[in-house]
Amino acid sequence: MKISVLGTGVVGQTIAEKLSQLGHDVMISTRNVQKVFENTATDRYGRPSFKEWSSANSNIKVGTHAEAGTFGEMIVNATNGAGSLEALEAAGKKNLENKIVIDIANPLDFSKGMPPSLFVCNTDSLGEQIQRTFPLAKVVKTLNTMNTFIMVNPALLAEDHNVFVSGNDGDSKSEVKALLKSFGWKTSTIIDLGDITTSRGTEQLLPIWIRLYGSFQHAMFNFKIVMSKS
Amino acid sequence: MKISVLGTGVVGQTIAEKLSQLGHDVMISTRNVQKVFENTATDRYGRPSFKEWSSANSNIKVGTHAEAGTFGEMIVNATNGAGSLEALEAAGKKNLENKIVIDIANPLDFSKGMPPSLFVCNTDSLGEQIQRTFPLAKVVKTLNTMNTFIMVNPALLAEDHNVFVSGNDGDSKSEVKALLKSFGWKTSTIIDLGDITTSRGTEQLLPIWIRLYGSFQHAMFNFKIVMSKS
Repeated sequence: MKISVLGTGVVGQTIAEKLSQLGHDVMISTRNVQKVFENTATDRYGRPSFKEWSSANSNIKVGTHAEAGTFGEMIVNATNGAGSLEALEAAGKKNLENKIVIDIANPLDFSKGMPPSLFVCNTDSLGEQIQRTFPLAKVVKTLNTMNTFIMVNPALLAEDHNVFVSGNDGDSKSEVKALLKSFGWKTSTIIDLGDITTSRGTEQLLPIWIRLYGSFQHAMFNFKIVMSKS
Repeated sequence: MKISVLGTGVVGQTIAEKLSQLGHDVMISTRNVQKVFENTATDRYGRPSFKEWSSANSNIKVGTHAEAGTFGEMIVNATNGAGSLEALEAAGKKNLENKIVIDIANPLDFSKGMPPSLFVCNTDSLGEQIQRTFPLAKVVKTLNTMNTFIMVNPALLAEDHNVFVSGNDGDSKSEVKALLKSFGWKTSTIIDLGDITTSRGTEQLLPIWIRLYGSFQHAMFNFKIVMSKS
């Protein structure tokens, strides 16, 4: 399938790589293609530059968000939460119609000091904002509650853990669950929370995720819902 | 130890009973003692009336919040989040000085429709509101992220799961952790998140807790943080 991944950061790269490994035809997109190739320095985590990453993944196309909007039969929003609506607008409202838009971004607000809080509050979520702004897109929120390396390789952790799915369209959620399974997620670990308003719940996991990250000093953990003895 | 539990609902009752079973001298408190005994009907979950519960637990004293404030060497806030500050004011600011106040309440807001959202937002929490309002109390937030029967009996679930602790005073948190261990929590399952601002993280677990409750149609679950293979 032709899949576009909006966002050239580590999350976008990791998802794009996984999708490409799985045999999908992938385009990764950014606001300014020239600019993203100009920065040739390793980042603050010591990761190679985008240019270097792109050379090593030459089968993954690089385009503008508009090109990605046209290219992808399915769209993954892996941009910063604060820039997500703008990136999706750039992808083109018309291009998103009837397409599944997998939103894996978080509405992190760095303007109120560290650690970041959220720029949504209680009765709204980024997932809903995207669905409201693009009413004909089929928005499915998922994967936003964990580190990106775990997203595409849940077996990194010592035991089963959970991924949540939120969205208004059942068929689209089924397609996304199938994609999650192809990433390595067992059926039993995928929790369908309900409609897109349940994104509020998963986005509000971020504040404790951030504190746990602060405590552990690493991001190799995830949430699991433990049930009663059956 | 003399411990007061503010709140005569199921959470207060369950905590008071457990503390009493552990040998503590317990008072449970309410705004209006006469009124709480007047309601003799079973509640909507089929639980016996407070009067009936109190007869069965005659070793647990019943008092006003003010009496509880004087009585307890340690205070547990098990009131509704929306009434917590008022209940603690009634317990008496002076009475709370230098005492550990264990806050297990949640800032649930039922005014914006169901499911409830929170009446705090991003950069505040009920735990912090209590600490700000009673600066000489030693507020420790814990246990608010699960059903009350699991709070006092973590072995109800099929495997280990976590309880979080937030507070500014290390010694007070150590005392609360010891109390949690007496409830059945293994040391390895108690996660100290840091200061009282980390209550934001645990209170914001409620929105997804509520959605999971809606999906599962029961409350016999809890969060576990799964780590990487060591």
